[in-house]
Amino acid sequence: MSVLNRQLVLASRPEAEPTAANFRLVEQTLPPLADGEVLVQHRFLSLDPYMRGRMNEGRSYAAPQPLDAVMIGGTAGEVLESRHPRFAPGDAVVGMGGWQTHAIVRGNDPGALRKVDTSRVPLSAYLGAVGMPGVTAWYGLTQICAPKAGETVVVSAASGAVGSAVGQLAKARGCRAVGIAGGADKCAYVVEELGFDACIDYKAQADDRSLHRALKAAAPDGIDCCFENVGGRILDAVMARMNAFGRIALCGMIAGYNGEPISMANPSLILMSRLKLQGFIVSEHMELWPQALQELAERVGAGSLRYRETIAEGLDSAPQAFIGLLKGRNFGKQLVRLA
Amino acid sequence: MSVLNRQLVLASRPEAEPTAANFRLVEQTLPPLADGEVLVQHRFLSLDPYMRGRMNEGRSYAAPQPLDAVMIGGTAGEVLESRHPRFAPGDAVVGMGGWQTHAIVRGNDPGALRKVDTSRVPLSAYLGAVGMPGVTAWYGLTQICAPKAGETVVVSAASGAVGSAVGQLAKARGCRAVGIAGGADKCAYVVEELGFDACIDYKAQADDRSLHRALKAAAPDGIDCCFENVGGRILDAVMARMNAFGRIALCGMIAGYNGEPISMANPSLILMSRLKLQGFIVSEHMELWPQALQELAERVGAGSLRYRETIAEGLDSAPQAFIGLLKGRNFGKQLVRLA
Repeated sequence: MSVLNRQLVLASRPEAEPTAANFRLVEQTLPPLADGEVLVQHRFLSLDPYMRGRMNEGRSYAAPQPLDAVMIGGTAGEVLESRHPRFAPGDAVVGMGGWQTHAIVRGNDPGALRKVDTSRVPLSAYLGAVGMPGVTAWYGLTQICAPKAGETVVVSAASGAVGSAVGQLAKARGCRAVGIAGGADKCAYVVEELGFDACIDYKAQADDRSLHRALKAAAPDGIDCCFENVGGRILDAVMARMNAFGRIALCGMIAGYNGEPISMANPSLILMSRLKLQGFIVSEHMELWPQALQELAERVGAGSLRYRETIAEGLDSAPQAFIGLLKGRNFGKQLVRLA
Repeated sequence: MSVLNRQLVLASRPEAEPTAANFRLVEQTLPPLADGEVLVQHRFLSLDPYMRGRMNEGRSYAAPQPLDAVMIGGTAGEVLESRHPRFAPGDAVVGMGGWQTHAIVRGNDPGALRKVDTSRVPLSAYLGAVGMPGVTAWYGLTQICAPKAGETVVVSAASGAVGSAVGQLAKARGCRAVGIAGGADKCAYVVEELGFDACIDYKAQADDRSLHRALKAAAPDGIDCCFENVGGRILDAVMARMNAFGRIALCGMIAGYNGEPISMANPSLILMSRLKLQGFIVSEHMELWPQALQELAERVGAGSLRYRETIAEGLDSAPQAFIGLLKGRNFGKQLVRLA
């Protein structure tokens, strides 16, 4: 079978915000499979904020994305051809196939390709609520925040793939869930469709004082747990309203990805309120994924974990969709449909 | 017995740095003891950075020190007279007697008065290495930092009552101990007398770049644990050199006590290096004090936990000694000798 693969590679590193010119389209005819290899046709590509960090050179928690190589990314698709005994044509699979229409994967590489069951969970959900974003929510909430019933949990980027799961998992544990999101439509969705107790539209808050008041109204008993996806002034405002012994799971600092240094206004609150802040990266805790994925799949199957997707059409739309994601233009999990 | 008590009360709240005018001397003849009461003559008053916070009005983790009331403070002394069955004249006792020469204490109040054994541990040490500062060091190091043998532990204010214990307890656990202190004499003491592996004189570092270089030289394998007594640019510099999964016990932010907001330059390092920061107040963990005090007393008795004291003479010297403490003019535990 002769297959034409289309891929987007990193052409150059962004100076500040990424632009479409940082990516370049490459087309290639794929070679025949070797023994143990699997040819996958990608149906969905996941776009995630972490990718912005990889585009930079220099020190981060992960190696930078190499120039002229296919952009890293999670993918869900279907096996077209297999020379590996565990995979057969038609199998639904998820992996880290990257920004391309097809991938040839060595079936034995650990974590490279995983068969999934699409009878109760849609394929695309394995890139969202039942994938890395869902496990991220589950890990930060249950392992770092560890809220007790009756406590108040605040999550920023609340309509996103991670944030929406955080709030629903917190509600399922008997907590008050307060979201922070950008825009009235996102806030309405968070409260009305996802069942959060309240949501603050940070774009409607003119200044820090107004943000502070809104937080006070939404979390009248103070904040016990914060799942932080944003950082900057949002985190500053949340910290000022944290109760003694509060826990902050630091998952994202999206505001700083373009290199502007973003300080924390009042770190002495960590001492005054005896807070715990902890940063984490979910891929370093693979031992907990099975437990997390089980709860997430059950909840999605049962309809108690809801999510929304924004789907861009075709590989060529990926750069603009990614740039939009970094600006918060997506609504829920950002995907690209590849086939 | 008619006893004249001399005390220092808080006369006014400081605008920025405290001055002697914030304190007022009051003399009073003490009334006769009621049943259950104990009259204590204080020999030593402990001066500690936390007192600065109490002088402020407004939100902190503890109630502010009331105006016109005797300043809060730990004391060590001797029972002069007792109408409580558990205490007898001559008993060595520690308590929270405040900035005064004598105190009448209800012997049954929980934690108000504790008999101590001065056969192997000097009385004053119960205000330092075998008292609140020592337990503070023990708690933050063992319960938050929890270093493994071979890891590198950095502690700021390293020649102080808390910092000196942190480094020695870390060494006893097989760690590399690196101190940060202000002045060549303090650094020499920390390395030569306390046995730290290295000490950085932050006053000798002209700028952040030079501080960063000094940290790199003193902690060539990076920093796994930080016991932070200072905050500000010291903490910023340490955070930049922390290894993945590092732990920071936040014990003091002395630089911010006068009200200047002191930000954290790069909180995204918490995420990038998956750090844990945790603030704590040792008085909230009384259940661990017996265990901590046992190790501390044994080490002081055996000579493996050393300390230095700066002793001001007489109650009248307390305000200047306290102001000096906040400026780092003390060397080791700051005490006032009252009798």
